Amino acid sequence: MFKASDHPYLVPFDGSFNYKDAITSIDEKQLDDKEYKKKLKKQTEKLHDLQRIMYAHDSHALLLVFQAMDAAGKDSTIRHALTGVNPAGCQVFSFKKPSANELDHDFLWRTSTRLPERGRIGVFNRSYYEEVLVVKVHPEILKFQKLPNTPNLKEIWNERYASIRDFEKHLARNGTVILKFWLNVSKQEQCNRFLSRIDEPEKNWKFSEGDIKERGHWDDYMKAYQAALRETSRSYAPWYAIPADNKPYMRYTVAKIIVETLESLNLHYPKVDAEAKQRFEHLREILVNE
Amino acid sequence: MFKASDHPYLVPFDGSFNYKDAITSIDEKQLDDKEYKKKLKKQTEKLHDLQRIMYAHDSHALLLVFQAMDAAGKDSTIRHALTGVNPAGCQVFSFKKPSANELDHDFLWRTSTRLPERGRIGVFNRSYYEEVLVVKVHPEILKFQKLPNTPNLKEIWNERYASIRDFEKHLARNGTVILKFWLNVSKQEQCNRFLSRIDEPEKNWKFSEGDIKERGHWDDYMKAYQAALRETSRSYAPWYAIPADNKPYMRYTVAKIIVETLESLNLHYPKVDAEAKQRFEHLREILVNE
Repeated sequence: MFKASDHPYLVPFDGSFNYKDAITSIDEKQLDDKEYKKKLKKQTEKLHDLQRIMYAHDSHALLLVFQAMDAAGKDSTIRHALTGVNPAGCQVFSFKKPSANELDHDFLWRTSTRLPERGRIGVFNRSYYEEVLVVKVHPEILKFQKLPNTPNLKEIWNERYASIRDFEKHLARNGTVILKFWLNVSKQEQCNRFLSRIDEPEKNWKFSEGDIKERGHWDDYMKAYQAALRETSRSYAPWYAIPADNKPYMRYTVAKIIVETLESLNLHYPKVDAEAKQRFEHLREILVNE
Repeated sequence: MFKASDHPYLVPFDGSFNYKDAITSIDEKQLDDKEYKKKLKKQTEKLHDLQRIMYAHDSHALLLVFQAMDAAGKDSTIRHALTGVNPAGCQVFSFKKPSANELDHDFLWRTSTRLPERGRIGVFNRSYYEEVLVVKVHPEILKFQKLPNTPNLKEIWNERYASIRDFEKHLARNGTVILKFWLNVSKQEQCNRFLSRIDEPEKNWKFSEGDIKERGHWDDYMKAYQAALRETSRSYAPWYAIPADNKPYMRYTVAKIIVETLESLNLHYPKVDAEAKQRFEHLREILVNE
């Protein structure tokens, strides 16, 4: 079963994570944007090759989960980290408000039907974690979820954390490597990004008025993220809290974690055995003598 | 409704297509591979931008269907033409032998559940066209399809062509632009490619013994392609017969047709109306005065 290696942004597995200690920007002298873009390019080239090997090897899948506050850069990080990958080996799903049909199922159902096959990279832009984030911040949403009984709220979240851990452990046992990224943007930087969506006409279409409303619940969201990350960061399905105020740094950092993880699996192109080689020789004769 | 523009490789809409006249390689002095790679790169960069606009515009989808004999280069053409596109805006599905569950549905069902949403590019690596290609060459497959009655064979294919035309016209009416590529490889070039899959260890895993058997039905396949292309190349869902013996040329040619088609749609980033702009100003105030 997959086991995450140590990393500065890895969320510990012992429940000690504190969101206030998680940095949103790096203090040390940063490289300029161009340098990070170059470094990102190298990672995406590696990722392209690693995905091809994973596809040929055909035993593992890679699931990348992205969660964040609005405007933290989920879409653009997915775009920049994965654009060099063959789309035949990569599927991205965005999960929005569940449909009536989806609400007729348990809360893991709609995502589980979209899990990546062996050999592929699957990306969840938002995920089942919304069920312990937005729903926890707005518990009135539970009314629409048709649950069979209404235990006390605390019990609901604990049950959900347990369901998620069990689900992810099952996937890990069966070959899916799960990496989860919390893009940790500061409240001030979110404000700047909203303003640029308002001020720059070509970004207007990205702006949603509801985003401002959710911003009002900032502290509740931070607490919900902290609880979710504490309860579900495990060696078989780690969370990474990525500083998100500097986009080029964030994109590079995410890509590098993905690359290092795939490299650690030591995958290789399948080799044909001696018996098959002999059959190949026979077929070779047929082709040559046609 | 989408209408294909003229193109040297466009299959005519009047049923006059003859596979013997369709070239598998270009005679004129070819550019060298490096030049085609450069030209391809320009197209994939354009495609990246066009896909982003299509996503923002959110009214059209693009469906690309690839059909070909084995080793014609479907996988690598998809990889090379689409690797520069954001995977969040592009989904590739490969259709292999139908499952028992899929056979419990009509022959369009399994593909229709995987059609691209508005704003996205969907790629079918093989498709419902297999139902008038491999199944026509091996009509004994029909036994497993649980059809309610067994009309004479000719009627089955005519009914399927009609179902496909109707299905594609419906999609076109509702905003899906459909481009279909037949990668037209010569029998000799297929032989060369099979031999390199046998001779080069890193390509061994791609080689399937069944491919050699299918090669024995070459002429039947050519006739099945000809009939399918005659019956289903229409202005709203055109077929292109692409010379496939030179891979760099083929990849560039496919990418260019995709790019020119998207350009012809004249899509643009959505503009926000005056009323929304006013509301934006109000939200701007809220953010600035927080």
